[in-house]
Amino acid sequence: MLIDDISAVAQEAGEIILSAHDLTVKSKPGTANFVTDYDIRVQRFLQEGLLAILPDAHFVGEENDCTDDVFHGYAFIVDPIDGTTNFIRDYRASSISIGLSLDGEIIMGVVYDPYRHELFTAEKGNGAFLNRQAIHVAANPLSNSIICLGTTSYDRSKTDLTFTLARRLFDAALDLRRSGSFALDACAVACGRADLAFEATLNPWDYAAVSCILQEAGGKMSQLDSTPIRLDRPGSIVCGSAIAYREFFDNEFWKIKHTPFS
Amino acid sequence: MLIDDISAVAQEAGEIILSAHDLTVKSKPGTANFVTDYDIRVQRFLQEGLLAILPDAHFVGEENDCTDDVFHGYAFIVDPIDGTTNFIRDYRASSISIGLSLDGEIIMGVVYDPYRHELFTAEKGNGAFLNRQAIHVAANPLSNSIICLGTTSYDRSKTDLTFTLARRLFDAALDLRRSGSFALDACAVACGRADLAFEATLNPWDYAAVSCILQEAGGKMSQLDSTPIRLDRPGSIVCGSAIAYREFFDNEFWKIKHTPFS
Repeated sequence: MLIDDISAVAQEAGEIILSAHDLTVKSKPGTANFVTDYDIRVQRFLQEGLLAILPDAHFVGEENDCTDDVFHGYAFIVDPIDGTTNFIRDYRASSISIGLSLDGEIIMGVVYDPYRHELFTAEKGNGAFLNRQAIHVAANPLSNSIICLGTTSYDRSKTDLTFTLARRLFDAALDLRRSGSFALDACAVACGRADLAFEATLNPWDYAAVSCILQEAGGKMSQLDSTPIRLDRPGSIVCGSAIAYREFFDNEFWKIKHTPFS
Repeated sequence: MLIDDISAVAQEAGEIILSAHDLTVKSKPGTANFVTDYDIRVQRFLQEGLLAILPDAHFVGEENDCTDDVFHGYAFIVDPIDGTTNFIRDYRASSISIGLSLDGEIIMGVVYDPYRHELFTAEKGNGAFLNRQAIHVAANPLSNSIICLGTTSYDRSKTDLTFTLARRLFDAALDLRRSGSFALDACAVACGRADLAFEATLNPWDYAAVSCILQEAGGKMSQLDSTPIRLDRPGSIVCGSAIAYREFFDNEFWKIKHTPFS
């Protein structure tokens, strides 16, 4: 099975993350946007392993740029280490994120958390799984919801929006969480540990894999203005259980500083 | 060794948490302030185990009230499950927190994270340890710091202060995290995974154990107005590496809405 082969590559790459030591940290432009030798090493490992499975697929990774290639044929859309700051600090909340698209539509998602040995997988139409057990989003109303917050910390022009939305959602909900890995946040929503996750700007490799996992678990994902996510360029993201996601839009949270997203 | 005996009780109690199923959740007054059968079960287990080690000690737990007893002789100050909402949602970020005081001074702290099998321990004057390896706070300036945020979610009168402080610190630092367990946040600071943690109101059992661990790891902890923490009643908390803590006060973050804490 294709998804088993992809999962095996993700889990092997997880071993590289766990064995990490003697990190060489280089600063990329933008605060909190680091790249380590390990990002590059894990991405190379994934590229080689995944293209051995599907040799004709395009490969889009965090260390490349966004591209229109994702609209033609197969494309792997990959974040080698989602949560790089956590990885650098040994905060132990990072994941490997692999989405597979066909002609611009995500058909498969694999997210592996090497610290917890948790493998989230989904194929379009076949449900979502955590370590091969079926998972489903929770059914809490927004008032009883856990909201996962992304801060887009490398682009401080998003801070006003982020904090306004965080405060409004906190007032309406149970509590906030912030792990520092959007892929893990969205997986937490997919398996019912949390109810809603948002971030002002993310790249396709941050949300490609989890868009499939979340949807197959019964959840919803879109940009903050409710338009569909894009695989060819960055965008805002909100995802949640069916109930929390609906309440997010019913309560017009999306209207908060809507302009920056249009 | 006393600390080994206490650690063994904490780790045994961790097994109860890991084996949890069929939770019976009862609402306590205040949103997000839950108590489960497991809180009570873990507290009873800890009380029995700890008083077998030091029969004359007082026992102060989350399921009791604050008391002046902590000023006389030995007292265990215990949170059976720090991060109860996480526990209920299987968010997997909760800990067992055991502080031991003598005549009102914390002399020992043990925090056990059963999900990661991480045991944080400290005795006054003898350093701090994670799984018996010495730990130390990081040396990042505030501008390169990870800030752990507590929301006091069960008391919404603190929300203005919390968000104002969070925003000010985010602007000055690298990024925010929120785990939902203050004990784990402070332990993250103690071992250099994060740099600063704060919360508008906490109870003694939330910070008693980690106050010892943090200090023995080279960090600092106080109330937000810089007065010492109290073991006999709730208070605000800020803790950090020596550097981040100093910058917090040098930059007068503590003056933000100072009045509610006096």
